[in-house]
Amino acid sequence: MKVLVINCGSSSLKYQVLDMEGEQLLAKGLVERIGMDGSVITHTKVGADEKWKNVTPMPTHKEAIAQVLGAIVDPEHGVLKSMDELDAVGHRVVHAGEHYSHSVVIDDAVLKVLDECSALAPLHNPPNILGIRACQELMPNTPMVAVFDTAFHQTMPAESYIYALPYDYYTKYGVRRYGFHGTSHKYVAHRAAEMLGLPESQLKLITCHLGNGASITAIKNGKVVDTSMGFTPLEGLVMGTRCGDIDPSIMTYVAEKEGLSNEEVNDVMNKQSGVLGISGISSDFRDLEAAAEDGNERAQLAMKVFAHKVRAFIGSYIAEMNGVDAIIFTAGVGENDMGMRDIICDNLDNLGIHLDLIRNRTRGKEAVISADDSKVKILLIPTNEELMIARDTVWKVNELKNSQH
Amino acid sequence: MKVLVINCGSSSLKYQVLDMEGEQLLAKGLVERIGMDGSVITHTKVGADEKWKNVTPMPTHKEAIAQVLGAIVDPEHGVLKSMDELDAVGHRVVHAGEHYSHSVVIDDAVLKVLDECSALAPLHNPPNILGIRACQELMPNTPMVAVFDTAFHQTMPAESYIYALPYDYYTKYGVRRYGFHGTSHKYVAHRAAEMLGLPESQLKLITCHLGNGASITAIKNGKVVDTSMGFTPLEGLVMGTRCGDIDPSIMTYVAEKEGLSNEEVNDVMNKQSGVLGISGISSDFRDLEAAAEDGNERAQLAMKVFAHKVRAFIGSYIAEMNGVDAIIFTAGVGENDMGMRDIICDNLDNLGIHLDLIRNRTRGKEAVISADDSKVKILLIPTNEELMIARDTVWKVNELKNSQH
Repeated sequence: MKVLVINCGSSSLKYQVLDMEGEQLLAKGLVERIGMDGSVITHTKVGADEKWKNVTPMPTHKEAIAQVLGAIVDPEHGVLKSMDELDAVGHRVVHAGEHYSHSVVIDDAVLKVLDECSALAPLHNPPNILGIRACQELMPNTPMVAVFDTAFHQTMPAESYIYALPYDYYTKYGVRRYGFHGTSHKYVAHRAAEMLGLPESQLKLITCHLGNGASITAIKNGKVVDTSMGFTPLEGLVMGTRCGDIDPSIMTYVAEKEGLSNEEVNDVMNKQSGVLGISGISSDFRDLEAAAEDGNERAQLAMKVFAHKVRAFIGSYIAEMNGVDAIIFTAGVGENDMGMRDIICDNLDNLGIHLDLIRNRTRGKEAVISADDSKVKILLIPTNEELMIARDTVWKVNELKNSQH
Repeated sequence: MKVLVINCGSSSLKYQVLDMEGEQLLAKGLVERIGMDGSVITHTKVGADEKWKNVTPMPTHKEAIAQVLGAIVDPEHGVLKSMDELDAVGHRVVHAGEHYSHSVVIDDAVLKVLDECSALAPLHNPPNILGIRACQELMPNTPMVAVFDTAFHQTMPAESYIYALPYDYYTKYGVRRYGFHGTSHKYVAHRAAEMLGLPESQLKLITCHLGNGASITAIKNGKVVDTSMGFTPLEGLVMGTRCGDIDPSIMTYVAEKEGLSNEEVNDVMNKQSGVLGISGISSDFRDLEAAAEDGNERAQLAMKVFAHKVRAFIGSYIAEMNGVDAIIFTAGVGENDMGMRDIICDNLDNLGIHLDLIRNRTRGKEAVISADDSKVKILLIPTNEELMIARDTVWKVNELKNSQH
């Protein structure tokens, strides 16, 4: 089965084509500046010497999808002979509220639900839906599957997702912890079980997705029991530009001092905070580490605060699960930043956590990086959300076909 | 040395008189409705059969203090022959910002600092200062000491107290984690070391002050390394009516939906949230437990969410300290609610935490309640902030006297 995976933002779109027999990536690409001057598609065929670029007007997502389809069947750069070879499309969708705890085949009822969930993810769900509708117009007979960032977290018990706020905020406005990055946490949890040679149903895992956005999840016997992102992707860990957990009184205090509107407050918390806010230098950990090496104290502080919060969550999830078998690092910082992994895992030996500093000197590939005597395994697993989306797409499309027989 | 301890609120005032030779409580009392109709003092002499009450106009804190002084030298209900017997006054003060990491003898410079800190604790510091000034007028020659809720927490490292917000919020507005209940955490940490027969400098302690306000502190080698309350006493644990940690985006979302001002947002988070908000029933754990026993699901949920958060903090502080020697429960819920202690400590055996369910069936008195095989000791220690204030008062007054010789 050949699957197109679409991750659609407001003015950009990422895609991959995978042959799911053997889970082979065939091509991938990026469309930028949709609806703006200078719309451009950058397409890479696996094995090709170079990327193929095409600057052409794409006033809406429909033209962008048309360019993607054109690229993947292009005689020279393409990977399919015709669109008939494409069996299904998998769409990344951010928010499914409490409606779906797994991926679903998209129909009108599903689209209606996603529309409703746009209230909870006003920046993300609308472009996701635009991408789905554009694909439906261009491929009316191809089955499509929605894969949600929130779905994997729906197994959390109520004590993990209910906030200590007036209860009618939950019933009226859907205010609860949802969690995000679910597809990534799910993918690395599966891979961890495979690497450990044990079924997920027997494992307690803590998955650390540390990128520019960062979240951490506790997975017990294959089910999420807690995660650090909450009602929105702002809560929890310190991130590149997001504050994570803070005293909820702070921003009303600062808003009064600086005359900030709610929108400006959210802008500060989402775009001017995190390690950028502390350091005043950058949201990029490579910049921070360079500055820290040069003796910049606020860059050093930003790294310490980031690590401190990851450590705190690791401890709290160990308590919640009454232990942990493996801790997994993934995403940009988690996969590549050996120094940060070292700081995070340092001085946790009384919890059975012992990083091997030599094994840790690796980046971007699967590895066991704990010491042999470490009771808790520490794993480095590059995430692959697109593959997870393609897998779920195959699963749901096969299920649909079987139900039709 | 005989010490008067004063804890002064905006319209109420608590006091104790202690003979610090032997640390004996002589009398204690409460003044209510200061500046309102029906001002009343309730005074209890230790050993007396009944409380003494006096309803009399007290338009300001000065009249209230005068009533207190009158009561403690009263021939019938009093405990001192004259005011000459009173050696010092210890004042509880909530907020000292970053100025003081321990108690101080009050002089004009100190009062100026406390005035400045009123910006950080507008509800608490002003009445604390009123109480000090009233005492100074009535006892101009008696040395007075200020004991701060924030002081014990000043040893936290920067990674525990810096928020991932624009750094100038810290430098301009003093936005950082301060922590509160410091006098209580300090008192029970001292007692824990005595009960364990080890110096504090060799211990890793987690002190759980669980009352209507609740906070939890990690104390390593006698020094606070982290605490759950933050810039204000709102952050951290779920409390009677306070929300503790929430996604910082939630209240801007709800404020837009409900048209709430910043003041109303703070009112919701401080007074309509916590276990009251979840349960819709009460902020009092006795009411919740009665309702939970009757099958009320939201009361059960409120208790679960409360315990879940305490467990999460215990885990995170174990990670921060790379272990823990003892966990201490104190304050209303911590001292009296054996059911809640049981829920909090349940299923933590892989962290070396094993509550003895029979020993746990005690309330309001010092006890070791962990099982013999529990690597981590669990202690029940009733807090005594007044005694801690009196001890600090003796310490600072003696230091002052010695420096004058």
